[in-house]
Amino acid sequence: MTSDQRFGLQRHVRLTQPLALDGGAVLPAVEIAYETYGALNADASNAILICHALTMDQHVASKHPITGKPGWWEQMVGSGRPIDTDRYFVICANVLGSCMGSSGPASIDPATGAPYAMAFPVITIRDMVRAQAMLLDHLGIARLMAVVGGSMGGMQALSWPATYPERVASAVVIASTARHSAQNIAFHEVGRQAVMADPNWRGGAYYGHTPPTAGLAVARMAAHITYLSEAGLTEKFGRKLQERDTKTFGFDADFQVESYLRHQGISFTDRFDANAYLYITRAMDYFDLAEEHGGRLADAFKGNATRFCLISFDTDWLYPTAESRSIVHALNAAGAAASFVELKSPFGHDAFLLDVPEMNRVIDGFLRAVETPSPLKGRGL
Amino acid sequence: MTSDQRFGLQRHVRLTQPLALDGGAVLPAVEIAYETYGALNADASNAILICHALTMDQHVASKHPITGKPGWWEQMVGSGRPIDTDRYFVICANVLGSCMGSSGPASIDPATGAPYAMAFPVITIRDMVRAQAMLLDHLGIARLMAVVGGSMGGMQALSWPATYPERVASAVVIASTARHSAQNIAFHEVGRQAVMADPNWRGGAYYGHTPPTAGLAVARMAAHITYLSEAGLTEKFGRKLQERDTKTFGFDADFQVESYLRHQGISFTDRFDANAYLYITRAMDYFDLAEEHGGRLADAFKGNATRFCLISFDTDWLYPTAESRSIVHALNAAGAAASFVELKSPFGHDAFLLDVPEMNRVIDGFLRAVETPSPLKGRGL
Repeated sequence: MTSDQRFGLQRHVRLTQPLALDGGAVLPAVEIAYETYGALNADASNAILICHALTMDQHVASKHPITGKPGWWEQMVGSGRPIDTDRYFVICANVLGSCMGSSGPASIDPATGAPYAMAFPVITIRDMVRAQAMLLDHLGIARLMAVVGGSMGGMQALSWPATYPERVASAVVIASTARHSAQNIAFHEVGRQAVMADPNWRGGAYYGHTPPTAGLAVARMAAHITYLSEAGLTEKFGRKLQERDTKTFGFDADFQVESYLRHQGISFTDRFDANAYLYITRAMDYFDLAEEHGGRLADAFKGNATRFCLISFDTDWLYPTAESRSIVHALNAAGAAASFVELKSPFGHDAFLLDVPEMNRVIDGFLRAVETPSPLKGRGL
Repeated sequence: MTSDQRFGLQRHVRLTQPLALDGGAVLPAVEIAYETYGALNADASNAILICHALTMDQHVASKHPITGKPGWWEQMVGSGRPIDTDRYFVICANVLGSCMGSSGPASIDPATGAPYAMAFPVITIRDMVRAQAMLLDHLGIARLMAVVGGSMGGMQALSWPATYPERVASAVVIASTARHSAQNIAFHEVGRQAVMADPNWRGGAYYGHTPPTAGLAVARMAAHITYLSEAGLTEKFGRKLQERDTKTFGFDADFQVESYLRHQGISFTDRFDANAYLYITRAMDYFDLAEEHGGRLADAFKGNATRFCLISFDTDWLYPTAESRSIVHALNAAGAAASFVELKSPFGHDAFLLDVPEMNRVIDGFLRAVETPSPLKGRGL
């Protein structure tokens, strides 16, 4: 273990083993961009995989190379943090289909020498997990101490034990769901239609041309509303006007919430590929873990020795607490070990990305319990 | 009263009295397209004004001239219906700023001889009400027996007694609010940005060219999600696929909810003007009845003799019950007569447009009570 592995390093690997996808296509090679933090111990038993959400990336605890901003979960991952890089070897990989270095629609199609664009095969959450498993093979990690993720990361954290029950000791699933609802699909479809309505999208073949930033910004704006609670928006913005005191009786951003949303939309287009947005939202919409297991969610976890920790937020209306609760019911029905807590936060779905001390305590405690075999178990009882 | 006034007739009037708007501009003349149903009685005491929602129109109980569909509220308005055209003289006018015959951005600017487009002045809900009052003057109606509206129609129904307390005996406010919240504004801003992102919008000057249908369709899709409840979407669509049994692993509409939304978006563009959508959403975002009255909602109704009937729906998350309740609190504080009921419906905000027997009963009973002076009052007590 060299010292440079203690910090984010924009690691990248090209795995030449073909990857058979749920949709039937085969990727002949998979590129994975990832970051690691901390050191793998001698028996490779302290590895934690963090799975990121829709528009996040591998820079969980290191500076983003484009925006220069800190890692997206630095209050959770780092020295002395709940996911403590002094004790754990933390891996975070850019998901398959994304645009931060892993294979996705902006990658070069070896068959043509040009970007795949819409010729990239449609992928699933399980395909993302399969690619992560190949990365772990490459890193020499047979079994994860934990897989942890929020939102789409939580879908992967759920899919991991269902796909590789022997390879994961515990799973932390935050503000997530076992299947996308009609309303979830509807919001994503609005975003995709906004991208596709932009003439600069050109059927996806915009690489080397002006990208469809206007459409992608609208998609991001619509999605962003779903990440926030009504109460949180009211608390933060209410009907407050911009610096000027009076309405303009025009179409400039009069209200602070308007200029905030516009900024969210525009700044997103600097760091994200529009086609990747299409592919990843599609993977989320296709996600239905029960369907992959004969229609019964409990069957996804039958005989599973993984320990689960579920966390939801009371103001999250994208993946409300009821979704986490139904996962816990399925885990209980499957006889799996599951703990569950609904946390209070005014910030809606976005809460999992914020500094929520109670969430930190729950995850810290859960990981310590997983890490330390219980004394009873140690005595062979 | 000629017999043809008993049916919708695509009536239209050009009022040459100038209209001073909240934004400071003056419209030299106002065109109003309206429909009437039933007959005005001898003392003109049986007039009911129905105010329509964002994308609705004056065809409340008569065939829409473009779509050929029945009126948008035929289960509520008609012979023997709660708003009974055998007993009441019902008026419904296309709101100022819209595109079904009343003055709006698609109207000809007399100063240039070309459509106003974005030169049309920004209007408010109160401006819409002022234009309706001018129409009533034209029709010889000094005082309304009732003003009735849902959603944006409810905003007008609230604004009516606040603006013309002497001219309205009662107000029925359904699934509405006294001010647009940050989340309400945010959704509208997404829609406006979707329209404006469409290159065919051309800064609003698209008349005579291809209109920005792609952007307007996206705007409608985003808005449409807010009109439905999560539970209603789940009940209606769930994760059901289109006729084929399996996922396509592509970007066609695989899920029924996707094709439903796409249809809602596209069909909307056949009947609605994109600029009108911008202007009317802006008017709604500006709506804050308390702000118009020194910041205290109760002051909007101080000393008001109007009788109010408030109705909300339990699954409406666009204008949730809490909004109606805060209006009732303000009415109570102002000493105004107010009844309030929250109705159960799985259909979210859209419920007010559907056949909800309980809503019909509430409105029927309220109007009969308003129509018939109480015996005690009749005896001068």
